Order: sequence, then structure tokens, then C-alpha cells
Amino acid sequence: MSISEAKKIKNIVVIGGGTGTFAVLSALKQYPVDLTAVVSMADDGGSTGILRDQYGVLPPGDARRALVALSPSPVLRDLFNYRFANGDLEGHSFGNLFLSALEKIHGNFALAVSEAGRVLNIKGTVLPVTLDNVRLVARLANGKLIRGETNIDISRERARAAISHLWLEPKAMLNPAASEALQKADLIIIGPGDLYTSIIPNLLVAGMSEDLRQSKAKKVYVCNVMTKYGETHGYKAEDFVCAIERYLGNGILDYALFNKTRPARAILAQYKKKRAELVALPRAMRTKKPKYIIADLLDGGNLVRHSSDKKFAKILLSLV
Amino acid sequence: MSISEAKKIKNIVVIGGGTGTFAVLSALKQYPVDLTAVVSMADDGGSTGILRDQYGVLPPGDARRALVALSPSPVLRDLFNYRFANGDLEGHSFGNLFLSALEKIHGNFALAVSEAGRVLNIKGTVLPVTLDNVRLVARLANGKLIRGETNIDISRERARAAISHLWLEPKAMLNPAASEALQKADLIIIGPGDLYTSIIPNLLVAGMSEDLRQSKAKKVYVCNVMTKYGETHGYKAEDFVCAIERYLGNGILDYALFNKTRPARAILAQYKKKRAELVALPRAMRTKKPKYIIADLLDGGNLVRHSSDKKFAKILLSLV
Repeated sequence: MSISEAKKIKNIVVIGGGTGTFAVLSALKQYPVDLTAVVSMADDGGSTGILRDQYGVLPPGDARRALVALSPSPVLRDLFNYRFANGDLEGHSFGNLFLSALEKIHGNFALAVSEAGRVLNIKGTVLPVTLDNVRLVARLANGKLIRGETNIDISRERARAAISHLWLEPKAMLNPAASEALQKADLIIIGPGDLYTSIIPNLLVAGMSEDLRQSKAKKVYVCNVMTKYGETHGYKAEDFVCAIERYLGNGILDYALFNKTRPARAILAQYKKKRAELVALPRAMRTKKPKYIIADLLDGGNLVRHSSDKKFAKILLSLV
Repeated sequence: MSISEAKKIKNIVVIGGGTGTFAVLSALKQYPVDLTAVVSMADDGGSTGILRDQYGVLPPGDARRALVALSPSPVLRDLFNYRFANGDLEGHSFGNLFLSALEKIHGNFALAVSEAGRVLNIKGTVLPVTLDNVRLVARLANGKLIRGETNIDISRERARAAISHLWLEPKAMLNPAASEALQKADLIIIGPGDLYTSIIPNLLVAGMSEDLRQSKAKKVYVCNVMTKYGETHGYKAEDFVCAIERYLGNGILDYALFNKTRPARAILAQYKKKRAELVALPRAMRTKKPKYIIADLLDGGNLVRHSSDKKFAKILLSLV
């Protein structure tokens, strides 16, 4: 490696949405890297869902979480995450209102996210995976269709059939700015996060798979630590990888990263109440791509979360 | 004047609220001066009133308008002034939500205004005149009491009796930061703005009158160009000055500034529909303070507004 290569700032793209992506971004922003978050645009629940319905805006929730992860200001992070507890604004997160008001003014969600990033003084860039107004649709193993991310995410049925296929309606095109970031990337991190409602919705966007295949970046999938009832109930580590490859295509992922640390029994018992279980590790290494990496990835808190400290970031950065 | 005096940046305090204060701040910020806006905290109508009622916050409206006036960013000015047109957020101005969310987080409105000023990158400082939660009360000439700024501001009666006395409930103390700004000021500008609902509410705060008397600053009252039905119907220029002095005390104002330009007949006809008339100029100069200054102060648009361009600012700056 020449000196100029050693000094080159690495371009890292994180694909996801939700709290898993928040942890990855929080971990990586502590290093001198050029970070881009590409976030799902399928959310339609809670504050985001109300704003979509009442104002015809694109979903701000996942962009907001990524913006907050990349902001150095504790005050503005608190503000963007603040939720009104009652009254007309009940349940609305302030950051969502911020993004939706800017979108109404400019008629452009990408510009709203970029302005919000400027106000939050973020380290990096947040890009919506698509600028098309889409809804997520799932077909279950029993043939039943479920429309809307929030209906897929929150299972109200006692024993719901597994998700057999997932797509966006209407078809969505990859945001050109996201495409450009993928081409320039040295490392692309997919996940962790809710498999069918935060991660795969990004892979369903037309152009994503092709761009990932063409990109010279190393591509790593970070697997979830716990299963989620209604989405990944009973999934083992390899099932997660298979699901990703099903929508992404084979031979694209270079690495898959799994957690080896077992959370405390008391913590697992809490998760058990929500029918969430520890993801079983792969029984054997693979001979073909992706290469499996098994490491300690947890933050050691009362929730089973990927660490936002340097330990997790160092493992990711060692791949590039 | 020595060279060091000539170079000293002047400290200017503008006391008011609403659109008149917006014009003064917009005009003055084009000059190398140190600007502080001290704004009324009596508003209780519209978006501000709903936020006060539902969230127990202090009124953000007048602080928001002053913040916007002092911000150099057109995007953030548009955002802070943006009003949701329908749905749960109907009528709420985004800037009000911003200030109220920050106040809920910090439990401190002054801190919220200062954080908002940092985000908006304002040139100057915005200070609430008081941090006490107050309501404006008026007694009319017929003895009737009217509670709440918005009820005083908007006369629903066909012929309402004149306002005979105005006070705050409960008593309010001057914000210590505003007191400090008044002591350091070289020039203090009171008005223009709605006499009883934007300007005098500032003078009713305990400590204001004493601080203005003690301050070595030049003090100027900028008179409104038009009367307002229900507030200043039939008022001549001298009636405005008398009302100010009644609440402020005599011998404090050094100057009173009046507009001499007559707006176009078509514009005055529009105002006539709202029973607003051109304020008649003083018939004679005064021998005692305040000194009367009569000048061209208008912006020449379709509304009778004080100019936000350099013409108006130059007249104000010539006083110090």
C-alpha cells in the first residue's frame, strides 16, 4: 500500500434505517471516514404515517434517525428526537415535522434532508434510497397480502404465517445521489435492522442490486442479534443471509458479520416475552462468498443492541 | 469624537413584537451594530395560543418573528415562518413548534430562544421581555374588562369603547438579560407596532420603566403610520406618544419619530375598509422631550409598512 493510499479517507455507505443503522453510524462517525447513510423510504407508521397521509409528504422517520446519529450537537439531537406527549401534536417527533415542513416549502424531500443535515451540522450525508412515494407489500406463506410497512412490522395476529415475498408499490427508482455514493464507496454496510421492514426495502429499489454488483466496494451484511416475531421468527444466521441474497442477488456480499456474545439471561428473558430469540450462529464457515465473521458486537446494555462504540467500528473498518 | 469612540460598535435595543419590530430589525441588521430585540410575551392567539394552552409553554410568536428578522438564511426564515395548512398541525407555524419543543426539553424558554438563534445563525440577540407566564388584561372606557391579548387585539364588537387601562396578570418581572442589554445600550428603539398589544405589554413589566430611565441610551419611540380599530381608533400622533409616556413615565423618551409620506389613495382605501386611518402628524413641535422627528419612513409597497431598507435605518442610526 502506497502512502497516498494509506492516507485516503475511506468512503463508507451504510444501507438501512431504524436503530441498527443508528448504531452503525454512531460507531463509525468517531473515525475519520466519509460516511453516507442510504435509508429506507417505506415507513408508514406512527408520526411518519400521519404526516404521509395528511400532508402527502415522503416518510421522514428513517432519514431523521440517520441525521440524528450523524449530528454532533446533543441539543439538536434531543430536539429532533423530541416527541410531543399530548395535544394536537401528540406522538409527532419534532424531526419529522422539521423534514415535512421543509419538504412542503421546497417540494423536494432530498433537499429537505440536506437542509436538515446542514442545520444539524452532520458529519456525513443522509440520502433517501428513493424519491418515489412507495408502499411496502408482503405476501405471506398462506397467500395473504399485507400492505404497508407498519402492518408488516407489527404483527397483530397470534401466529402469523411467514413472509414469503416482499415488494414496493409502485416500482421505485434508486435516488441518483445514492447511486453515485455506491459507486464511490470503499465499504458498503447493509444492516443491522429489521430484515423485512428496514433493510430489504432498500434492496427492492430498482437499480440497487446492479449498483451494488458494479461497485468495487467491499460489501458486508451485519446480521441481527435477535429474531423478531412476525418477521424473522425462527431464523438462524444463515436464513438472514439467504433472505438478503434473495433480494440482492448471489455473489455480491463479501462478508457477513455475526455477533458471538450471549446477552445476560435476564435480558434474554425480557426478549422472550416478545417472542424474540437469539439468532443461532452459522454451524460452519462457507467456502464461497460471503465470508463469515463472528465477533463480539454488543454494547452490553439492557437492550440487545449493536455497540455504538469503537469496538464495533474497528471490526467494520478492518474490512477495507 | 475621538477615533476610539467613532469605531465603537453601537449597542441597539429594539423593544416590541410583531411586524413593526420585524421591519426595524431587518433595516438595522444591514449595519455594523450590536442588535438586541426585546419582545413582548403577552401573545395568546392563534398557533401561539394553542401551544400555551396545550403544552403550558410561554408564547413563542413574537420571539419567532424577531429571530426570523435577524437570520441571514432565506431557507431557515421560510421554514420558521412556514404554517401547516391542514391536518393535525393546521395553523401552527413551524418556528413556534421549534421554540415550544425546545422549551419542553429544557424547561426554559430563554434557552430555547437562544438555541433557535444559534440554529438560525442570527445577527444579534432575541430576549423575551419576561420569563413569567402572563396574560394581558384591558379595562375599557365603559368599565368592561377584556382578558387576553388576542381578545384585545381583535375587536369583534361593532363599536368598542376605547382602552382606558392595561396591565399584566400576574405581575411580571423584567428578564435579567433584557435589563443588562438596556443598561449597555447606546440607542433604545420602542415600536413601531400595535400600541396596546405589541408595544405597551413590554412597558408593563416590572423594572422596565426604571431601567429605561437609568440607561444612558438615547430612547426613541417610532410611531405607527396607521391607526387600528379597537386599539387606537382616532388616535393622532401625540396620542400615541401620550399613551407610551403614561406607561413608561415622562421625560424618558428623547425622540419620537413620525412618518410624513402619504401612501397612495388606493392603499388608504383598502385600510379604510378595516377602519384604519393615517395617523395625523403633530401640529407643533414640542419644547420639552421627546423631540419630534418627521421623515419619510415607508417602504412604498402595497401595505403601509415601515421600510426595512437603509433609509429607515439611517434615520434611526443618526440619533446616536
